[in-house]
Formats: sequence, structure tokens, C-alpha cells
Amino acid sequence: MNNFKIATCQMNVVDGKIDNIMHSVELIREASHNGADLVCLPEMFNTPYDNNKFIENAEEEKNSITLEYMKTLAREEKIYLQAGSITEKDKDNLYNTAYLISPEGNVIGKHRKMHMFDIDTDDVTFNESDTLTAGDNITTVKTSLGRIGIAICYDIRFSELWTLMCEECDMVLLPGAFNNTTGPLHWQTLIRARAIDNQVYVVATSPSSLDNPYYVAWGHSMIVDPWGKIVTQAGRNEQILYANLCNDKIESVKKQIPVLKNKRKDIYETISK
Amino acid sequence: MNNFKIATCQMNVVDGKIDNIMHSVELIREASHNGADLVCLPEMFNTPYDNNKFIENAEEEKNSITLEYMKTLAREEKIYLQAGSITEKDKDNLYNTAYLISPEGNVIGKHRKMHMFDIDTDDVTFNESDTLTAGDNITTVKTSLGRIGIAICYDIRFSELWTLMCEECDMVLLPGAFNNTTGPLHWQTLIRARAIDNQVYVVATSPSSLDNPYYVAWGHSMIVDPWGKIVTQAGRNEQILYANLCNDKIESVKKQIPVLKNKRKDIYETISK
Repeated sequence: MNNFKIATCQMNVVDGKIDNIMHSVELIREASHNGADLVCLPEMFNTPYDNNKFIENAEEEKNSITLEYMKTLAREEKIYLQAGSITEKDKDNLYNTAYLISPEGNVIGKHRKMHMFDIDTDDVTFNESDTLTAGDNITTVKTSLGRIGIAICYDIRFSELWTLMCEECDMVLLPGAFNNTTGPLHWQTLIRARAIDNQVYVVATSPSSLDNPYYVAWGHSMIVDPWGKIVTQAGRNEQILYANLCNDKIESVKKQIPVLKNKRKDIYETISK
Repeated sequence: MNNFKIATCQMNVVDGKIDNIMHSVELIREASHNGADLVCLPEMFNTPYDNNKFIENAEEEKNSITLEYMKTLAREEKIYLQAGSITEKDKDNLYNTAYLISPEGNVIGKHRKMHMFDIDTDDVTFNESDTLTAGDNITTVKTSLGRIGIAICYDIRFSELWTLMCEECDMVLLPGAFNNTTGPLHWQTLIRARAIDNQVYVVATSPSSLDNPYYVAWGHSMIVDPWGKIVTQAGRNEQILYANLCNDKIESVKKQIPVLKNKRKDIYETISK
């Protein structure tokens, strides 16, 4: 990995796709002007987190207004851009898809959320699979900055995905929208544990906790280093976070606690199928 | 799992095997008299955490003074007892071994630490494999209280072990001795993440942070529920912690966030060899 500056935009997402795109443009430009080489957006950054709104705001990749704006912006600002996730329409299916765009304005990676968020807690019930289809691929992309993995929100709960993904990457970008039930005890704990286990940076980007009638996100976007330390963290309001990611930190952690070497592959193994 | 009361003894461990045994007896009796059905002791509870001391205090299972005391005590108090770990000598090898003893005074389970603690951090260097040999088995035991898994300290860093172990258990007993370098950011985070991922209780028992010339443990023993909530937690000093473990809690968490069902076994899997 090369050393570089990353920014993550915990943005206010409203009910209005064009408004969200325009607002994200402002935040991305600000982050770029502050020196960020890679800028990250939240899960479903152009739509409320709601099954009906996913349908209403879905876009085909080849005709995506959102992606056109993002590609143009990445090219103009000469930055890498993790374009949220958005609702991707492909034939009869909808996916929760995060795009990675190069400074040349090309889509160089995409991750379709692999695990559908179907939960029924005491306070929150949500069935993503009512509208969305799960993706089937683990996503890593080689870039000039380093090897980047992408996972989305509920994907964080599945350590096997992370074990396999992190064999091929130095950092993971995690757009996600936890809530007030799962957020307090699970969000930070799982982000930090995945960073510690896999000795990677994790950059988790949530919408802000803006009050709305659909789904109130937990916020608390954060950038965590491979030792599991929170480098910087947002609260509940809109905020852009910045951090310098350093290859030395990764190498140092791997040398100090060689967990990746110490795995007992003679006894267990995580396999991909 | 049945509902029952558990106790974990964060004890002062000194340089003197008989002193440690006698002191553990006091703590176990106190915990039993306070109604505990299962009492847990720390990693290496009868010896300083030091390679030379492991050799000095090692015992063969069939001639183990420590185990004789523990078996007698379990029988007298009619409790399950997780007898720390101790240094087990078997032919030419030494193991870091935790025993589970039944209320009848029988050894019904043993776990030999599977991952050797060989680290070289900025502040702490330790090579357990200079003296110890790693065990090769994942350990779960069916008891009248429920299905119990056992892992030891550094074993917590390996999610694959936990995935496989927790397919067969409702709670994991984790004797462990983190230190002042790894303790602050890793101990609680990893314990809680394993509980959340696998939806089990985790009962982590450390020696106290008693000052000594060998190795100062982090302390902070804790009992964590399947939601990842700390039910009770020690500081750095000697203390017995208690908690009531409830089957309803496990069932409730599994129903609310069905991660074990939502794994994508069509894409990845943790296998044992």
C-alpha cells in the first residue's frame, strides 16, 4: 500500500435523489480540496433507506444519473471515489451496490451487498430481501493507492467474508447504516474486531442520524487502523472525517502480532466455493 | 442450555504453586457458597506466566497435585469447575491445558491451547513455543448446564476456531492473560465480537494485574452475553464476578439477528480438517 489521505463523508441523506447527489458533490469537492486522494460515501447515499424508496430510486448502471455525476467528479478532482452504495437495477433484480471510481472517471470495482439485512429486533424490523437481491462475489480492487476491499453494512457480521477478502487487500471500505438498536454495541465492536483480526484499515461510512420517517442511521462513521484503534470518528451529525493511511502501520502490526502466520490451517480453513 | 449461575475468579497469582492452589480453593469455596453452579479460574492459575516457571510447575495429568485438589473441591462443593489452565506435561511435551471438572469430580473435558502466543510488540516479547506445544483439538463438552466450549487466551484471535467451536456450544470459557499492550484495545473488543458473531456467552477469566517480575496480566475479566453486552466486568484487582446465564437470551438474539442462518455457505465456508 502507498501512504495517502482518505476522507469519509457522513452525509445527511434526504428524500430526493437529485438533492442527495448535489449535496454529495459539495462534500466530495470539499474533501478533495482538503487533499483527500480517496473519498467515501455512505450506503444508499442517494435514497432514504426504505424498500419502496429503493425501487423508486433504482438506476441501471449504463443509464445511471448518479454514476455519471460521480464519474465526472472523480475525473475533475482527480480522486478515487467510493460511490456509496446505490440501488442498482439489472434486468429484473435490484442490488445494493457500491462502486469504486478511478481518477480517470472509470468504474474499476463494484460490490453488490452479499448478505441481505433481514432482521427482526425488539425495535427495528427490516427485510431488505423484500426488494433486493444479494450479490455473489467477494470484491477487491488493485489500485495505485493499494489493494482495496469493499463490503456493505450487514456484510460486516460475517467473518468468513472478511478472512477471504482481506487476503487480497490492505484496507476495507464499508458503507453501512446501522441503527439505534444495533449501533451502540455492535457497530464499533465489529469494525474494530475485523480490523484487528485481519490487520487492515477499515473505513466505515454511515449516513448521518438525520431524523426522517424511514430509517434513522446510527452515524458514527469511523476510520480504524490495523491495531483496532479508532483514528477518527464522527458523532450523529453530518461530518467529513480525514485520516492519513500508512503502510508502515500495517507492516508494524503484522510484525508485532503475526496472527495471519499463526493460523492453524492444518486444523481449520476458510474456503471460497 | 439451562439457566444457571456462573462465577469467574480473577485471582492474584504468585510465585508458589501450593500458595496458588490454596488461594484458588478459598475463592472457589466462596463462589460456590454464593450459589455458583460453574466456577472459572484464570489461565496458568498455579504459576507465574513465564516459560521457566511453566517448566518448574508442570504436572502430569495422572500425578497432578493441582488436579487432585480441583477434583476433590468440585465433588465436595457439587459444582462444575473450569480449572484454569495449568502446565500439563505429557511425555516430552508441555501444554497450556484447561480442564473442565464435573460435580462428581471427574475430568469431563480438556483443552490444550491451539495457538502459541509468540508475539514481539514494542513493549512485550513472549514466545510460548519456546517451552510449550500447541494442542490440535477444538474442545466442546456437553454438560447438564449446557454445551460448553473452551479456548485459551491467544486462541481468541482466530475466528475460524470460534466458528467451528460455537456450532457445538452455547457458551465459551476463555481463561486468558492479555497484557498492558494488547489489553486496552484488543481484549474487550475481541471477546465481545466473538460473542456477537457466534451468539454465545463468553466468560473470560484473567489473573489480576498483580505486580510481579514475570508478566503483568491485563485483568478485566468479564462475562459477555450473546448480544455482546458486558454483563459484569472486573478492573485490575482480584475479584469474583457472578452472572446468571439464560437460555432465553441466546434464543432471543438468534431470532432478532439471524446471522447464523444468513451465512452464505454457497460462497464461503469454514471447514475443519
